[in-house]
Amino acid sequence: MKRLLITVAYDGTNYHGWQLQPLASTIEGVLNNKLSYLLKEDIKVIGASRTDAGVHAFGNVAVFDTNTRIPADKLPYAINQRLPEDIKVQSAREVDADFHPRRVSSKKTYEYLIYNAKFINPIYDRYSHFVYKNLDIEAMRRASSFLVGEHDFKSFCSTSSQIEDTHRIIYKIEIITEGPLIRILITGNGFLYNMVRIITGTLIEAGLYKILPEEINEIIRLSDRTFAGPTAPAKGLMLKEIFFDFNYIFGD
Amino acid sequence: MKRLLITVAYDGTNYHGWQLQPLASTIEGVLNNKLSYLLKEDIKVIGASRTDAGVHAFGNVAVFDTNTRIPADKLPYAINQRLPEDIKVQSAREVDADFHPRRVSSKKTYEYLIYNAKFINPIYDRYSHFVYKNLDIEAMRRASSFLVGEHDFKSFCSTSSQIEDTHRIIYKIEIITEGPLIRILITGNGFLYNMVRIITGTLIEAGLYKILPEEINEIIRLSDRTFAGPTAPAKGLMLKEIFFDFNYIFGD
Repeated sequence: MKRLLITVAYDGTNYHGWQLQPLASTIEGVLNNKLSYLLKEDIKVIGASRTDAGVHAFGNVAVFDTNTRIPADKLPYAINQRLPEDIKVQSAREVDADFHPRRVSSKKTYEYLIYNAKFINPIYDRYSHFVYKNLDIEAMRRASSFLVGEHDFKSFCSTSSQIEDTHRIIYKIEIITEGPLIRILITGNGFLYNMVRIITGTLIEAGLYKILPEEINEIIRLSDRTFAGPTAPAKGLMLKEIFFDFNYIFGD
Repeated sequence: MKRLLITVAYDGTNYHGWQLQPLASTIEGVLNNKLSYLLKEDIKVIGASRTDAGVHAFGNVAVFDTNTRIPADKLPYAINQRLPEDIKVQSAREVDADFHPRRVSSKKTYEYLIYNAKFINPIYDRYSHFVYKNLDIEAMRRASSFLVGEHDFKSFCSTSSQIEDTHRIIYKIEIITEGPLIRILITGNGFLYNMVRIITGTLIEAGLYKILPEEINEIIRLSDRTFAGPTAPAKGLMLKEIFFDFNYIFGD
């Protein structure tokens, strides 16, 4: 028995998120089915990030235990032939038998894409959130600077979450523009439920002058979801990379 | 009667290209139908670039004559409500009654997107060409430098084309990488049938060391399609911008 780690890319449009559900199509469900069929074992993957319905991934990570003799580096070829067009494994490697991707510290980078122009553009619509009012990027950048660091992010966590410790560290927020596209890249040690989407909704409010950048401090201090901005739509969000302390996993 | 110029963005995946065809769905056909229905006139658009089946556009241009009283800047709102999700007008303005977008000189920029990694990534698959062998970007850049300038591009024109003068000017080719994505941006005064896709196929051969960069000179000199590389797939190609001499049209 060995434990394999895979990186997985997917277009989340047609899935009810990562996590297994009895009656809905999920990324975890598809991976379990296709891996079990390929390896003729009962495979149960453990995901690093249980992305929401409609959220995309460039490099989510999962591990699973198997007795297969297929070498790890050959596995992506075999499984990708069986996976649907919108889910593809990007790499596979063996890890320690006790490695659990949610129980070790990691850094995650999410990317949120906004298309800011007068009219929707079909080319970007599948992977971005359309905002037709002009956004002040500098105001968004100033607002984002108050989020960087270690904070109690309770105000940026969906109220449906039962989590107790709402402290997280954001290492970096970059806001990059390319014509009408605005890319928000957020790297942190972990993210609360809907945290990136609520942060994005709040940064959009700063970009529209509905809040002042420095009000972010107050929103954090109040620890109350109702003071932050709306939850930006799932389709603009992509889990880009996960870095584990033991190594740089993605892209090798 | 006035002549309006519109910029149009579309995802070409589900269309048989721009040009009107009796039995197939085309961008021109959809625009004619929806504009005629909206304006209650028989509208016939004239496109600046008759993109091929499966090719996308960020900013194609078309003109048409109309008696409508709808102000040009309001037209996109009205027509976009009626257009399908994969075709959206981005701007509209009045132009001279004799302005014909294919009979005046213009500069066009095309973008070809390659996804160069070991495995297909669902997030980029719709708009890029997947190449799994490692491409040498510097070799591609050196090869591209021989294409810039005024040349007879007959070797880079599909043999099904009946065009007589195959001289064109390429002003600039930029090759930009972002992780596994390779963006080829080509600006010229006009492009022969399949020219950007054949140039891309040839640059890929340079990136794979199947040809030497300096062999591009010889391929140009021979004026024979069989010496250039294969035609890269339509889905990686996007018409990005068209600039007319009288003004900078797109994005205003």
